[in-house]
Amino acid sequence: MSYRAPVAEMLFTLRHVVGLEGIDAEDAEAILSEAGRIAGEVLAPLNRVGDRHGTPFAEGRVTTAPGFREAYATFTAGGWNGLSADPDHGGQGLPKALEAACTEMWNGANLGFSLCPLLTQGGIEALAAHGSEALKERYLAKLVSGEWPATMNLTEPQAGSDLALLRTRAEPAGDGTYRITGSKIYITYGEHDMADNIVHLVLARLKDAPAGTRGISLFLVPKVLPDGSLNDLRCSGIEHKLGINASPTCSMAFGDRGGATGWLIGQENKGLACMFTMMNAARLAVGVQGVGVAEAATQKALAYARERRQGKAIGAAEATSPIVAHPDVQRMLLTMKAYTAAARSICYLTAAALDAAHGPEGKAAHDRASLLTPVAKAFSTDLANEITSLGVQVHGGMGFVEETGAAQLMRDARILAIYEGTNGIQAIDLTGRKLALDGGTTARAQIAWMRRAGEGLLKNADPAFGRMGARLRAAIESLDRATTFQLAALTSNRPETALAGASPYLRLFGLALGGACLAKAALAASAAQKAGETDPAHAGRVALARFYAENLLPAASGLEETVLGGGAFTEDAELALAV
Amino acid sequence: MSYRAPVAEMLFTLRHVVGLEGIDAEDAEAILSEAGRIAGEVLAPLNRVGDRHGTPFAEGRVTTAPGFREAYATFTAGGWNGLSADPDHGGQGLPKALEAACTEMWNGANLGFSLCPLLTQGGIEALAAHGSEALKERYLAKLVSGEWPATMNLTEPQAGSDLALLRTRAEPAGDGTYRITGSKIYITYGEHDMADNIVHLVLARLKDAPAGTRGISLFLVPKVLPDGSLNDLRCSGIEHKLGINASPTCSMAFGDRGGATGWLIGQENKGLACMFTMMNAARLAVGVQGVGVAEAATQKALAYARERRQGKAIGAAEATSPIVAHPDVQRMLLTMKAYTAAARSICYLTAAALDAAHGPEGKAAHDRASLLTPVAKAFSTDLANEITSLGVQVHGGMGFVEETGAAQLMRDARILAIYEGTNGIQAIDLTGRKLALDGGTTARAQIAWMRRAGEGLLKNADPAFGRMGARLRAAIESLDRATTFQLAALTSNRPETALAGASPYLRLFGLALGGACLAKAALAASAAQKAGETDPAHAGRVALARFYAENLLPAASGLEETVLGGGAFTEDAELALAV
Repeated sequence: MSYRAPVAEMLFTLRHVVGLEGIDAEDAEAILSEAGRIAGEVLAPLNRVGDRHGTPFAEGRVTTAPGFREAYATFTAGGWNGLSADPDHGGQGLPKALEAACTEMWNGANLGFSLCPLLTQGGIEALAAHGSEALKERYLAKLVSGEWPATMNLTEPQAGSDLALLRTRAEPAGDGTYRITGSKIYITYGEHDMADNIVHLVLARLKDAPAGTRGISLFLVPKVLPDGSLNDLRCSGIEHKLGINASPTCSMAFGDRGGATGWLIGQENKGLACMFTMMNAARLAVGVQGVGVAEAATQKALAYARERRQGKAIGAAEATSPIVAHPDVQRMLLTMKAYTAAARSICYLTAAALDAAHGPEGKAAHDRASLLTPVAKAFSTDLANEITSLGVQVHGGMGFVEETGAAQLMRDARILAIYEGTNGIQAIDLTGRKLALDGGTTARAQIAWMRRAGEGLLKNADPAFGRMGARLRAAIESLDRATTFQLAALTSNRPETALAGASPYLRLFGLALGGACLAKAALAASAAQKAGETDPAHAGRVALARFYAENLLPAASGLEETVLGGGAFTEDAELALAV
Repeated sequence: MSYRAPVAEMLFTLRHVVGLEGIDAEDAEAILSEAGRIAGEVLAPLNRVGDRHGTPFAEGRVTTAPGFREAYATFTAGGWNGLSADPDHGGQGLPKALEAACTEMWNGANLGFSLCPLLTQGGIEALAAHGSEALKERYLAKLVSGEWPATMNLTEPQAGSDLALLRTRAEPAGDGTYRITGSKIYITYGEHDMADNIVHLVLARLKDAPAGTRGISLFLVPKVLPDGSLNDLRCSGIEHKLGINASPTCSMAFGDRGGATGWLIGQENKGLACMFTMMNAARLAVGVQGVGVAEAATQKALAYARERRQGKAIGAAEATSPIVAHPDVQRMLLTMKAYTAAARSICYLTAAALDAAHGPEGKAAHDRASLLTPVAKAFSTDLANEITSLGVQVHGGMGFVEETGAAQLMRDARILAIYEGTNGIQAIDLTGRKLALDGGTTARAQIAWMRRAGEGLLKNADPAFGRMGARLRAAIESLDRATTFQLAALTSNRPETALAGASPYLRLFGLALGGACLAKAALAASAAQKAGETDPAHAGRVALARFYAENLLPAASGLEETVLGGGAFTEDAELALAV
């Protein structure tokens, strides 16, 4: 099998790192096991097929790879599309933390396929939160079941990260609907043959709307209108991309024949808020995609390293050893595995905060989710790039030829740090909005959470922990000082210094938080060993956390130095770049 | 123009960082300017063409992209193929440091094309150093002119990094020639239509040869025999690769009809030494390829960032700013530019050591080149991966669609850390051979060289240097302690600890050495300013060196910690990987 869902690790992480609530352990295991079966048996076999086939475009139609339509039918028939959605709309009402684990599986098995349900999730969130009752009545159950997938139509050629520049126009038609006219680009699954209708969520500007992002509204624009006729919209082309070739990336034309019919979601000119509802869900999901593809790359590289024999390892009996026996290859594989585990923990933690926001913790949990979302998105997807590239490296020359599949994972992963807000945008969001909004209160609370994990290590005398406690403490203190610096810089007369340090600050945040999560896992594993559990995975969890602490966490001090002392470049960047 | 050779920076680096000898400044400038013209006007326009066309294979023949054969004719007619070769064989006898700058240009303009002359260089080195007079008489001038390009036939399916496993066989034919039989894979430009003959250098094993690498011999096996008939060899297929699609990567079959005719190079069973002559030249050249593609990616990203307008930068007058005005984008671009400059310096420094090895300095320079070669290869090509990926990121969504060309640079670069010895092999070479061979003497001398550059900074009170002196000193001391640790670990009862730290040690070596090189450039630029030179590039060089010191050098402390304290993982890697 090309992808095997790491169900035991997911459950261990949910239970001991995140503290999964709202479902008992047996049910969670049953759901994850079945999801793992679907991922491994239905989606994974189509991963390479989709990459090779692409999505041919002709006469306005997009053809997905053979098997995709059937797989989508299997996926939606199993109820997997609406795992966390409200049962009132046909969802399963399961915790988002559990859903995150399933999303990881779909994307680890087949990123190109899984983009379709991922975007539908965003549509569900936006419609459920902001849609009128009539609109929800007509569309929500179809989105939740997946019968009609949703898309996000944001980008235009001149408006990528800067949505203030949007030009797509909307005009009231007088009957409660709007006429939408304009062009969008980079619309994932904007057109395809896996479903009979597609529900486009489109950002557009009303006539006389205020300039900038305060004049944007969100519209629901279906491919097929309620009366069964086709709406005035079409796919005008698809992109030739580096990866995720199984998924069509469409240019969309709205209103060639006078205007596509759309329905307003939320209020006029308040589209940005609706969009952020959709976008925040998608941002966390993109982080989870990173975890999925990182896991897939790690599995593939490890399998190859156990099979491929080159050179004799120190102390080996045979003339040639599997390359997994060589320390430098072990370093690569452990880096992949430890980073994947850290990113997984952070994403699940973020999802659990979203769950908790609906419970007694309320606003504090909501704020925590807001803080962690850019970290989950950017840290996980930066790591996905690094991990999939290491996966190629472990394969040596075989990694560079496409038949191995290692290169595809690297190509596919490369979009994750770009879409749903580039990782630079995430970093600016973390420092410039999330830290700034509450003066660092939520960040300090998260740092206190990390310290508690770190103190647990220092109190525990397990010799297998090595330098873990000291390394984690040093990283957390680096993060604490960097947080103080960023907060001060934001309100100084040189706020650009805070922006200059935003990316290394986010990396430091993710690095330290990941270390704290792995420490929690190690503590739980150590306790289980002491309680007599003989599962060798417990010793492995401790060893993996120790590797992370002793080999990856040391980067924290340099990141801190960079945040605190690196910002001078904004003064003479143009001079240096002109050399 | 899609690539513009950075002639002024190359000259500045050669003069002030490396100390170019053996050619006067005017001649060097004239040569680099003309090389830059060829790179920009002849090779660069074919870069995208080659990627799209690939190298179709049919009936044993490989077709390169339209324009490649003509470009190769222009290239060889200009004498560019034999720049550093002995004038007795038709070369130009120019310093290798100058040649490195030209190699950077070819590869920055068109990596796929430039692999052909790059491999020929290796063939020239091996033949000149080890070939019989008769063989040199027949082949060397043709290789130097480029009329007949050379290939390196090392890899077999079961023998990649481990050449001890080679199976290709050679048998004496009784007439002084040998019959070669076997299969090779991953043979770059193993077959193509840019020249009328191809000279294959093939590693094979004689009957009754000792097992392992002491039983390998090197043979010259031409496609076309001296009598004009075709030799018994053929291309049996080509690979579908992630990148460098303009260059064919061939599987080669020798001896289908009884044995290809080959001539021994050097002595029987001493092929490994000959191969290392060829390989060391190629390893440095691969490092230079990394610099070239990094420079190309930096130029492309910078041009895009100056053009693309999104968001309003702090303090900007207009509503939307070019993205180069945003601090986070500046960080990416400066990282690209500073790392490129560091890698360039290290590669040129290595080439200059090869030049000096033929002069009065002799063995010390030879040893320095040996030490620096794995650093030049691995540090530059790891950075090439990071820089080309940053290049994609700067382009945002445009970076992920192939039409921009940013993705091609990333795909092309990905092979560099793999071929001619993976970067893990380079790291093991640095610690396990280069440090071990002389107990660290050469490394200490190089560290002393770095310290002198660092002391120059601390003595100089130029306020534009910021924290540069302190940061560089800290990085050099980290390298010094890590060197002590690696040397001790090698002779300890756990030598695997040294191998476990080999990759971060190499990274630390390159990082600190690059910092010292940029410091030398900054000192020279500062001195030029004080002497009244008003070229704004001088201020830019200082600012770039400062960025490197304040934003990239801080990673040194973490790398040191990882080398010194990270090696425990070799004890329980399997447990952690099995989780």
